[in-house]
Amino acid sequence: MTSITEESTNKVFGGWQKVFSHQSKELGCKMKFGVYVPPQSDSGPVPVVYWLSGLTCTEQNFITKAGSQSHAAKHGFLVVAPDTSPRGCNIEGEDDSYDFGSGAGFYIDATEEKWKTNYRMYSYVTKELPAVIAANFKVQADNNAIMGHSMGGHGALICALKNPGMYKSVSAFAPICNPTCCPWGIKGFTGYLGEGNKNVWKEYDACELLKKYNGPPLEILVDQGKGDNFLADGQLLPDNLVGACAKAGVPVVMRMQEDYDHSYYFISTFMGDHFDHHAKFLKD
Amino acid sequence: MTSITEESTNKVFGGWQKVFSHQSKELGCKMKFGVYVPPQSDSGPVPVVYWLSGLTCTEQNFITKAGSQSHAAKHGFLVVAPDTSPRGCNIEGEDDSYDFGSGAGFYIDATEEKWKTNYRMYSYVTKELPAVIAANFKVQADNNAIMGHSMGGHGALICALKNPGMYKSVSAFAPICNPTCCPWGIKGFTGYLGEGNKNVWKEYDACELLKKYNGPPLEILVDQGKGDNFLADGQLLPDNLVGACAKAGVPVVMRMQEDYDHSYYFISTFMGDHFDHHAKFLKD
Repeated sequence: MTSITEESTNKVFGGWQKVFSHQSKELGCKMKFGVYVPPQSDSGPVPVVYWLSGLTCTEQNFITKAGSQSHAAKHGFLVVAPDTSPRGCNIEGEDDSYDFGSGAGFYIDATEEKWKTNYRMYSYVTKELPAVIAANFKVQADNNAIMGHSMGGHGALICALKNPGMYKSVSAFAPICNPTCCPWGIKGFTGYLGEGNKNVWKEYDACELLKKYNGPPLEILVDQGKGDNFLADGQLLPDNLVGACAKAGVPVVMRMQEDYDHSYYFISTFMGDHFDHHAKFLKD
Repeated sequence: MTSITEESTNKVFGGWQKVFSHQSKELGCKMKFGVYVPPQSDSGPVPVVYWLSGLTCTEQNFITKAGSQSHAAKHGFLVVAPDTSPRGCNIEGEDDSYDFGSGAGFYIDATEEKWKTNYRMYSYVTKELPAVIAANFKVQADNNAIMGHSMGGHGALICALKNPGMYKSVSAFAPICNPTCCPWGIKGFTGYLGEGNKNVWKEYDACELLKKYNGPPLEILVDQGKGDNFLADGQLLPDNLVGACAKAGVPVVMRMQEDYDHSYYFISTFMGDHFDHHAKFLKD
């Protein structure tokens, strides 16, 4: 179950950026994921930070463009960056659009017949992958954080809200805050979960999950570029998250960043702040 | 002559990473280059740092993977990153190999009939591009530095050594130190300069140029990964540079970095040190 194959390894900031492949049981296909092993791993178990990427990404975008390794090395965090969907499942239509199918798993467990066997990214990220990491790396059990970008920001928020206590902190860059109310989310949820059962949709929407969250205190950090064209298009809906947090009594710091867009240039600029945020909760 | 077109612009670390295109007179084709405009540009002219990339690169590799913008913003340097060769010249054979033709201009002015009209990257980088930058950006004349990677490290070294005083400092990551003595250099110089005139070859080889350098003092900083497969292959020859510098009385700091390879992971790790190096010479 936990057999993994090292695909690449590069020394960076005193640690090692690695990419592994493995046969995923949840997804029924071969998957790749990135792992940054910080220099502090030599002296004992370290905390784990999960990163979830956005639409069209593989494990490569984050590890090559986000500038995360300097911060991970400074804090001594192992950083895990999975791919964004199952790959090569030969499902009819899986490669037809950038926002559905390959590269667009939405971090949910599909229920529709055509997708339900493979498109189980929620269970992959919250169950299978943590077990793989625990079995193969020297990590501190129960000292995890999660963050992500866009579709992956949505993923980070729902993983934290659905699993109280599993992640000590959560943050997001330009997350899809309210997928049941935006075009990307409606397309994805309709395809993977079906049009009929809106109660299942709510189980994967941060704004809905906040209504019933009663786990340990969570402090959510979000950065959102004001020059992000997907903000203008109504895909991200940060105001809805702020409103839902206020109603739920969950503290959120929503930083609207002048002129920044949706790119990894934006992400790299504030990556250090997000690591500092997680460090407040992950350090003993 | 200095008309440029903005192809993209992204806010990053308080400044703007831009890509421009223009019609190059030296190269006889449309070229792209990256410019990072630091936040300090708002208050007056800033120093310029040139970055020359390695084989196969476009202007994109450096600007997306090197993590340079945080350092450029800290120091207030405008950073210029050109492409690595002319593009789309329709010269027979230009796209046949990764180490000759497109993506492999070697920062020299070709003399061979087939290449001499377009392959003039040396004049492009040292004459045309600085004029374009001076005409379009608020920069401090005569406050320039240059650095590069691999083929671009070679480029940075020869540009500095051939133009005493033009660049106040120079540094390189895993440079091709002695191209007349390594397979990449011999292939490139044979193709662009012809097999016959070895005296012309020496005009583009840092180890040869050091023999006659008598400009202002230069302090060369070089980082070289010990795990770099091109080091083992004899393409880089850092010992020859150290020897030539010793004979010429030019100080060089050659840092051999355990386990690091030839990738942008290596580059990003030591990018901050190189900016600090240039800052010693560029600051008033």
